[in-house]
Amino acid sequence: MEYSDLSVIELRRDLHCHPEVGWTEFRTTAIVAAILDELGFELALGANAVNEASRLGVPSSEEIAAARQRALDHGAPEEYLEQMGDVTGLVATKRYGDGPTVGIRIDMDALKITESTIPDHAPAREEFISRHRGLMHACGHDGHTAIGVGVARAINRSEFDGTLKLFFQPAEEGGRGGKPMSETDHLEAVDHFMTVHLGLGHETGTIIAGRETPLPNTKYDVRYEGAPSHAGHAPNEGRNALQAMSAAIQNLYAIPRHGDGGTRVNIGEVSAPNQQNVIADQAMMRVELRGETPELENYMTDEAVRIVEAAAEMHDVDVARSVYGQTTTFEPDGEMVGIVSDAANAVPDIDHVILREPIAGSEDASFLIRRVQETGGTATYIGIGASNPSGHHTSEFDIDEDAIELGIDLVAEAILQFAA
Amino acid sequence: MEYSDLSVIELRRDLHCHPEVGWTEFRTTAIVAAILDELGFELALGANAVNEASRLGVPSSEEIAAARQRALDHGAPEEYLEQMGDVTGLVATKRYGDGPTVGIRIDMDALKITESTIPDHAPAREEFISRHRGLMHACGHDGHTAIGVGVARAINRSEFDGTLKLFFQPAEEGGRGGKPMSETDHLEAVDHFMTVHLGLGHETGTIIAGRETPLPNTKYDVRYEGAPSHAGHAPNEGRNALQAMSAAIQNLYAIPRHGDGGTRVNIGEVSAPNQQNVIADQAMMRVELRGETPELENYMTDEAVRIVEAAAEMHDVDVARSVYGQTTTFEPDGEMVGIVSDAANAVPDIDHVILREPIAGSEDASFLIRRVQETGGTATYIGIGASNPSGHHTSEFDIDEDAIELGIDLVAEAILQFAA
Amino acid sequence: MEYSDLSVIELRRDLHCHPEVGWTEFRTTAIVAAILDELGFELALGANAVNEASRLGVPSSEEIAAARQRALDHGAPEEYLEQMGDVTGLVATKRYGDGPTVGIRIDMDALKITESTIPDHAPAREEFISRHRGLMHACGHDGHTAIGVGVARAINRSEFDGTLKLFFQPAEEGGRGGKPMSETDHLEAVDHFMTVHLGLGHETGTIIAGRETPLPNTKYDVRYEGAPSHAGHAPNEGRNALQAMSAAIQNLYAIPRHGDGGTRVNIGEVSAPNQQNVIADQAMMRVELRGETPELENYMTDEAVRIVEAAAEMHDVDVARSVYGQTTTFEPDGEMVGIVSDAANAVPDIDHVILREPIAGSEDASFLIRRVQETGGTATYIGIGASNPSGHHTSEFDIDEDAIELGIDLVAEAILQFAA
Amino acid sequence: MEYSDLSVIELRRDLHCHPEVGWTEFRTTAIVAAILDELGFELALGANAVNEASRLGVPSSEEIAAARQRALDHGAPEEYLEQMGDVTGLVATKRYGDGPTVGIRIDMDALKITESTIPDHAPAREEFISRHRGLMHACGHDGHTAIGVGVARAINRSEFDGTLKLFFQPAEEGGRGGKPMSETDHLEAVDHFMTVHLGLGHETGTIIAGRETPLPNTKYDVRYEGAPSHAGHAPNEGRNALQAMSAAIQNLYAIPRHGDGGTRVNIGEVSAPNQQNVIADQAMMRVELRGETPELENYMTDEAVRIVEAAAEMHDVDVARSVYGQTTTFEPDGEMVGIVSDAANAVPDIDHVILREPIAGSEDASFLIRRVQETGGTATYIGIGASNPSGHHTSEFDIDEDAIELGIDLVAEAILQFAA
Repeated sequence: MEYSDLSVIELRRDLHCHPEVGWTEFRTTAIVAAILDELGFELALGANAVNEASRLGVPSSEEIAAARQRALDHGAPEEYLEQMGDVTGLVATKRYGDGPTVGIRIDMDALKITESTIPDHAPAREEFISRHRGLMHACGHDGHTAIGVGVARAINRSEFDGTLKLFFQPAEEGGRGGKPMSETDHLEAVDHFMTVHLGLGHETGTIIAGRETPLPNTKYDVRYEGAPSHAGHAPNEGRNALQAMSAAIQNLYAIPRHGDGGTRVNIGEVSAPNQQNVIADQAMMRVELRGETPELENYMTDEAVRIVEAAAEMHDVDVARSVYGQTTTFEPDGEMVGIVSDAANAVPDIDHVILREPIAGSEDASFLIRRVQETGGTATYIGIGASNPSGHHTSEFDIDEDAIELGIDLVAEAILQFAA
Repeated sequence: MEYSDLSVIELRRDLHCHPEVGWTEFRTTAIVAAILDELGFELALGANAVNEASRLGVPSSEEIAAARQRALDHGAPEEYLEQMGDVTGLVATKRYGDGPTVGIRIDMDALKITESTIPDHAPAREEFISRHRGLMHACGHDGHTAIGVGVARAINRSEFDGTLKLFFQPAEEGGRGGKPMSETDHLEAVDHFMTVHLGLGHETGTIIAGRETPLPNTKYDVRYEGAPSHAGHAPNEGRNALQAMSAAIQNLYAIPRHGDGGTRVNIGEVSAPNQQNVIADQAMMRVELRGETPELENYMTDEAVRIVEAAAEMHDVDVARSVYGQTTTFEPDGEMVGIVSDAANAVPDIDHVILREPIAGSEDASFLIRRVQETGGTATYIGIGASNPSGHHTSEFDIDEDAIELGIDLVAEAILQFAA
Repeated sequence: MEYSDLSVIELRRDLHCHPEVGWTEFRTTAIVAAILDELGFELALGANAVNEASRLGVPSSEEIAAARQRALDHGAPEEYLEQMGDVTGLVATKRYGDGPTVGIRIDMDALKITESTIPDHAPAREEFISRHRGLMHACGHDGHTAIGVGVARAINRSEFDGTLKLFFQPAEEGGRGGKPMSETDHLEAVDHFMTVHLGLGHETGTIIAGRETPLPNTKYDVRYEGAPSHAGHAPNEGRNALQAMSAAIQNLYAIPRHGDGGTRVNIGEVSAPNQQNVIADQAMMRVELRGETPELENYMTDEAVRIVEAAAEMHDVDVARSVYGQTTTFEPDGEMVGIVSDAANAVPDIDHVILREPIAGSEDASFLIRRVQETGGTATYIGIGASNPSGHHTSEFDIDEDAIELGIDLVAEAILQFAA
Repeated sequence: MEYSDLSVIELRRDLHCHPEVGWTEFRTTAIVAAILDELGFELALGANAVNEASRLGVPSSEEIAAARQRALDHGAPEEYLEQMGDVTGLVATKRYGDGPTVGIRIDMDALKITESTIPDHAPAREEFISRHRGLMHACGHDGHTAIGVGVARAINRSEFDGTLKLFFQPAEEGGRGGKPMSETDHLEAVDHFMTVHLGLGHETGTIIAGRETPLPNTKYDVRYEGAPSHAGHAPNEGRNALQAMSAAIQNLYAIPRHGDGGTRVNIGEVSAPNQQNVIADQAMMRVELRGETPELENYMTDEAVRIVEAAAEMHDVDVARSVYGQTTTFEPDGEMVGIVSDAANAVPDIDHVILREPIAGSEDASFLIRRVQETGGTATYIGIGASNPSGHHTSEFDIDEDAIELGIDLVAEAILQFAA
């Protein structure tokens, strides 16, 4: 099988050429499955890896079918595509001995960003630029996936005597895949859990042993549906979805500040594709809510839901609301932070260890980490510096590939320490 | 009884000195009752003249009690005050013979305007200016009341052989008294019905035989009630009545225009008397709605009510709504317009007759006129030019007193023609 | 030349297969030019037919270049494409004698609508359905164009001794092409001017001799541009284009009603394609304004412009505004209405003539008609009933092709009457 | 002079009977002046005590004249009224020796609250309830003034060898008097500065040595002025002040949260006293802005001013804006906190000392404290527990009078320690 012959850097570059956004990671999942299958891992794919019913922000069935076909056209091993069905994601497990079970979570999805073609941009210069215009690995998940595969290979070669579980998670962007993956049984047996992220504004050689306290976050997709009418003859006969949405937006930004701490509200993508001379019968928006604590986040979502629904009543239109993404907060366990820090000291090229650093924003691994902690395990979130030339989610984002090797060494070392 | 000795001009000046706003016309009603009692009219006072339960825009019981006491202090005959109780208004009836029943409607209330003291203003110069600062007869209802009394005296002296019913209506301003007076039995027996208004931008000597098609109108008093909280420590604990009201105002003005004709929305008096540093728990506004037809007016009130209530839900506050005033539309009967026109030709000092003129705005006699028409009678609304030096509802408004005599002659002549 | 061999029905079906939206009517213009060239007409194409600088609602240069290439690929005669350059539109003139100059205006553009494929839909059943998904002749302009060609052929065969000028106008939809075409010299010499529209809810056999009094209309494209910032870390650093647009929308719908007559405001297509977790830096909307008279329409545009700009200041964002479309009002000349009515009586299959009918909505021929009238000519707007199975601008819209022949006969007959 | 014979408790009760709101403390200032004059203090009154030009939230000249007359009618010594002119406030200075200069700031104003008459309320029961309906000492400033006088008497009897400066400040409520009093020269010579507040939710016997870090605060009075018009005939001719204010309110509450810390916005008292059927030409509101730091408060005021002004442009009305109140933040000097704490330990009835406690909300002494600190002095803000039966600013607020004596002892002891 050819994919197994790729080095982790070659694999990362192959994945970089074929970016797949959340819930369409068919090619990525299938290739990883093929490699791990050959390494002796037991595979749980698709609906066996995530709770299909609770997936958030799922694209249309047309988009999913097209992505699956594209994966097939671009060399995804068909055997694993068939096991996946229409659902992406993979949990791969291998038991080496009676030692502890260690879980590693890896995210795989790309973004809807058009990659830069300037020569300074390494993927352009070295010809592994995205082959799909408008899609790009602009947050390093191609590197994360390569780290996941590299760790599997390293542990397979090691004397580790526990169980290794690799969680290749779909749809990290937007906070859409963590929650459904946390709602399976796979995390229950995990004693120690780690997830990694490359970059984060740190140089290669720096690692963060415990990223912490992201903001709980809920994103709603809101769709107002009224009735069209001719804006000249009978404006009164319309039920104006756009007036409802505008009233909602004005009042959502005005949700009262909270005395107990910081809160956030933002309106993301908005559209009302109404025809000329017609009262708008459709209007859509994405509402993003955050709080410093789950209580503050609940306050914001309660307020927002009430406002969104009252705006519909105000203009006599219907409203449908669905959760597009959702994350919570967590704190890494001190024991884990210590072990990762110790492991870092054992890796030659790591020259700077930050014990803890707050996560500015929200983080989709949160529900997985809390599930592990709630069922008696310990967890941490590791940051791996990677000398990015440009910020995350920009068209010139890239990672220093040395950080991939370094990440593999660090995670493998930490795994070995658990079993020591 | 001294009031009976007053000429109509003296009576008008006495009333001008003692303006009383809607539902507080205790002195005015009592004096008119005394005079008509002596002329042999049968009196129905207070709750016998209007449907007490459906009164609109009623002042507080403290204000009513204070106004009643003030009436007593300023010479209102106590006997009639007692018959009135706390409700103003009078229907006076006298049967002269078997001929038709003619009804005349007269409004009596003043306005919350402070009267001008400049020498050019006749009431100031000739010393019959308002004795109550902030209150003023600035729409001529003092003159209307004098006309009503003058007509009673004239018919009493005449050979009229029908029945005369005089409707002295409270609370015309705001459209608050017409509807409750229309909901008694007094109008059922009326064969011919007239009401008069002085001024209207026309000179003395001009009359309008049929004023017509006022805009249906509803006024709501809306009160939002939330919960206060400290705006610094816990803005989230408040329920903000002012945010609700502002959202309502923004969206009320944006009620869609109607394809079938003109509509109007306005917000009258607004207040939110909240304390410093406190989230507003109280906010009040008056919402005024009009349409060219009852259907259009219904459209506006339906839209407004929905918006007003949804704004409360949006900000989680309570809302109370009451009708402050309500009027409808009408068309005068052609027969009546003809008779008034003929009568006008018989009055020497009337030199210009306009048959019909639209009423710009709304008109509180509307429900009385429609009630008469619905029970088989005919009706019209007469305008009596009165060379006003300043516009209605201004602090220098006054009427040419010659128009009072002329109005009496016209109405009396028309009454005689019905019985001819 | 093959296109010259097509019957008008064949031509209409060919055009129906190749719909082109406003300012991209390259194939349509070129084919009509080829046919008329062969008939001996003198051609003014592209920037010689319209005032290029005042074109409204012009697509991007990429879209225009793509449409021009597509026209070439689908058989547009290259010779005329070259004469056009990047601008569509045609004025074709032929002098037959010293008689009067008659102008006929024909619109050619299609709509962004996906055509129905159900068998009941004749273009689907008879295989002349649109070949370009998302584009459709859903307002009958394919038929109008066929009528224009048919009239040229008919007059060419007749004894007409005047001059015939045919105005094939681009970009009728949205009110974008009439004004720039009215700003050339071609209309100055026109003595009598007609334009036609098929359908309009009338059956085949009915014609309207004078459609009249459309609502003046202005459409603005408004683009707010602020600055993005992370909605979690630094919402204060953003300048929020979406808040500006929402404030504008709320207040645009609340432009006060006007005492002098009907006004309209509507917001058409809206979008704010902002990224997740980012303060919106872009927001676009189309604002549509109408009034019963040019004065009322001016009132609405003045109010709207002030609100749109103040909303930008309120949220510290930039705003750019461009006119997307603009029309005015007109009344047909009585003389013209009479001649068309007479002509209709002379056409055997016309069984019902409506003299005048108000245009519900706005009309892009308005500036051309007024230009003719201002320079001493007379004009009318003819409606030609066409038994539409489905409303204009719907995916199943179609026209009874018999109405095309009938329209040709009517217009040709009217032209001959001018010269009689 | 009789007032000099009053005990501090008698004085407090006399002041409680005669509450005077901000900038109308004529009687209070004059009585204090009379007492201190007799004690040998040098007096700076009115415009010599505050910077008249920078006074904030000043009542109308009619209100000031009426208050001044009322003071005269209720026994204010005329001599001091004359020195005051129309400006309240007093700085009283006495030099005892070469020791340090100690400043004490005392606020004097009452609130617009109607005092409770229930028997449980001591002022009602013991007959020193407010004699002016609607005005009340509901924040203990009557007690503060008594403490100021008591300290003067105590120091006069002591061996203190420095200089004592007493700052009797007007208009503390709303943050209106501190800033103008800070802008005189009186504070420059002050080495040590203290201010006191009774109550604050603490029992008698508890003192806070250093209240700290209030929120900077700015209050704006905003008045929109448009043009009236008849809401039925010509709504378009009005310029609607209420629409402007509603747009402002909606957008003020939606000022973006700030990434650097807490911010607050509130709208206080609102009114739009427009007539029926008239487009609102007047609308007023008070806008209250806070931030955790001066930078955050500046952010809020910049945003608010821009929104307030753009709302006026949006609806084509005029806007006038004035600062109603303004405060800043401060931290007490450690040295001062220590001395007050030591002094507290020396006062027998003080049984609990809190070193530091944050001020929840804003504080008008802030500009005085910062002026002292900026010119080289040290300062603190002392809280004196006073077993309030009901919260500050409520109609049943009262203070335990024992706390007055205790406050005098504490402040006098601290003064003596400075000179030790």
